[in-house]
Amino acid sequence: MGMTAMSYELDRDTHATRVASEGDRITLDAEISSGWSIGSAPNGGYLATLLARAIGDALDMPDPFTTTAHFLRVASPGPGRIEIEIVRKGRGHGTAVARLIQESKEVIRAISTFGDLSSLSGPDAVTLVPPSIPPPEACESGRAGPTEELSIADRVDMRMSPGSVTWKDGDKSNVAELSGWARLRDGRPTDALSLLFFADAFPPPVLNLAVASARWVPTLELTVHVRRRPAPGWVRAVFRTRALIGGYLEEDGEVYDETGALVAMSRQLARLHR
Amino acid sequence: MGMTAMSYELDRDTHATRVASEGDRITLDAEISSGWSIGSAPNGGYLATLLARAIGDALDMPDPFTTTAHFLRVASPGPGRIEIEIVRKGRGHGTAVARLIQESKEVIRAISTFGDLSSLSGPDAVTLVPPSIPPPEACESGRAGPTEELSIADRVDMRMSPGSVTWKDGDKSNVAELSGWARLRDGRPTDALSLLFFADAFPPPVLNLAVASARWVPTLELTVHVRRRPAPGWVRAVFRTRALIGGYLEEDGEVYDETGALVAMSRQLARLHR
Repeated sequence: MGMTAMSYELDRDTHATRVASEGDRITLDAEISSGWSIGSAPNGGYLATLLARAIGDALDMPDPFTTTAHFLRVASPGPGRIEIEIVRKGRGHGTAVARLIQESKEVIRAISTFGDLSSLSGPDAVTLVPPSIPPPEACESGRAGPTEELSIADRVDMRMSPGSVTWKDGDKSNVAELSGWARLRDGRPTDALSLLFFADAFPPPVLNLAVASARWVPTLELTVHVRRRPAPGWVRAVFRTRALIGGYLEEDGEVYDETGALVAMSRQLARLHR
Repeated sequence: MGMTAMSYELDRDTHATRVASEGDRITLDAEISSGWSIGSAPNGGYLATLLARAIGDALDMPDPFTTTAHFLRVASPGPGRIEIEIVRKGRGHGTAVARLIQESKEVIRAISTFGDLSSLSGPDAVTLVPPSIPPPEACESGRAGPTEELSIADRVDMRMSPGSVTWKDGDKSNVAELSGWARLRDGRPTDALSLLFFADAFPPPVLNLAVASARWVPTLELTVHVRRRPAPGWVRAVFRTRALIGGYLEEDGEVYDETGALVAMSRQLARLHR
């Protein structure tokens, strides 16, 4: 990685150093930043980006086609060890597993299949369309989350569509959907890898529901499909929860780039935590 | 497992025998049936059910909350070895990994988080509704798939909503959506585990698109969230593909039970194969 890329916060904070390598196994040391947190917990999308980057480096393939992360324990800012296992490396796709270990305990297990999005040659047919929202300068800037402690808000410039976030006023819309724009404040261009971050960076739309009071909405499992390499600017995204059952919920995201092209789809299983 | 359950085909064909156990690792022998195939390839939902069952047994937990399977190679009917690793067993959730090995090669890597759906106590809010389709007896019975060789069709009774499957007549609707009913022909009651099978048993809706000629639509990755234990009868399901990009596609499923309750959501990343 050149000096230019390392000058951006997301690249610096997802950098990991290889300390051992044997056959299909690679061990890396990482430092989990406190700069991407909600409350005291590092954001799941940030952690997924950290692990996917280590997987892509191990596979020497550029684009995370599909990444699933199971969040086993709450991560903490500070040192962490990443253990990579290359599961299969074929011509078109490579698959590898990453484990994040902190204090001898496994915190996240992730699996990802990488490939090269620039090499696809099959047909296109897309019926999804980007959310119809005002331009970023007409959207609502500022923090929005289940807690006011959001170090992540210092790193990502997020503009919520008017009326998207209704729980802040105590006047819930009962529509578990929100949309908006996002980009990194330091000017880092949006790329395929950073879509894993954006897919979990927005506040949880479930909090708009009157039944869903929660201090925190921890993710059990997050899966992100990166479908195209994005243009470098703003992402435009919409997130919806359509089934809250027994306090568990799915959250589905569609992420578009600045040109309106669909670039990623995400789904997570999460639960309300009081 | 009692004799009653073993008398059903899906239970017999997902049975695996423990041959070794050491710490968090369990090895089982399985026999992949040729009775759940599309062409010569065993169906991905059948294989996911096989692995999730082994994971649930290892964790001693009843319900597969979220299961992701990466299909690395084409499986074959015949012997297979299942290697389980228990990743974490907590109070409410347990997570484990399963690897399916055939002829010394890893064919599938799956990860699943289990729990107990009967113990949930949080709030409900569901806006998804079942597809509005005629009753099973008014739907179209019979085989429908990219190939005529469908041993799976002898095991599952599938009734497609009229107009759902348009590629059979060479008169494509260009709507990548299909819906219908399904149940197992031998009367096996639908349960939480079998929802993994139903989530990948329907034909691929992408084949309705004129641009999408394919003999086969292999799955790279399948994730299924089981959200409620289903009533024992028919499942009613709808599957949609909204983004075919460069020959890769997502397929999203909503599965409801006979009472109309949402019981599972699925998403897979697949690609067209000529």
